[in-house]
Amino acid sequence: MASTPEPPYVAVIFTNRRAAWGEAAADAAYDAAAGRMEELAATIPGYLGIESSRSADGTGITVSYWESEEAIAEWRRHPEHLDAQASGRSDWYAWYELRVARVERARSFP
Amino acid sequence: MASTPEPPYVAVIFTNRRAAWGEAAADAAYDAAAGRMEELAATIPGYLGIESSRSADGTGITVSYWESEEAIAEWRRHPEHLDAQASGRSDWYAWYELRVARVERARSFP
Repeated sequence: MASTPEPPYVAVIFTNRRAAWGEAAADAAYDAAAGRMEELAATIPGYLGIESSRSADGTGITVSYWESEEAIAEWRRHPEHLDAQASGRSDWYAWYELRVARVERARSFP
Repeated sequence: MASTPEPPYVAVIFTNRRAAWGEAAADAAYDAAAGRMEELAATIPGYLGIESSRSADGTGITVSYWESEEAIAEWRRHPEHLDAQASGRSDWYAWYELRVARVERARSFP
């Protein structure tokens, strides 16, 4: 899904479970906000790509890729993203875990 | 989902799209093999946990966590896992990307 360059680069692994999962209004608001965040992240210098999946039970994993820690820091403090982070804690997520990792090697098939 | 210790530790980010997705016999065979691989991985010394999600379109992300590169190397060459890797390329995946990354920090909510 994400076409990333040769390592090294940085991955943000965001594992989460939605709150109010399956409620149509909440799901629509979430999907709109998540789409907006993907658009906005792509405007940050050093953004490399994003991959996302969500199971039928509301468990999701999103991995975003970045050239550097500096790029991640800029994304973390973007005002619109800060608002979304607050909504994430108040409304959207029952729980999440966020891990920052340095990608050291990669291979693909086919 | 995965209860991991304080970083550092190693993450294997496996992004993929299923082949023959939605065909009942293929899905059942895949689910059985994937469950067996999760059981087997958990027996490898240095295994820390696994998180997985798959969207309705067949796109999946599985992240497994390990104490060390040595643990990953042992898992990679386990005979039953080698057989599963071959089936993955011949039958189960339209494509995949596998990235190995060193987790440097983590935070969780709530």
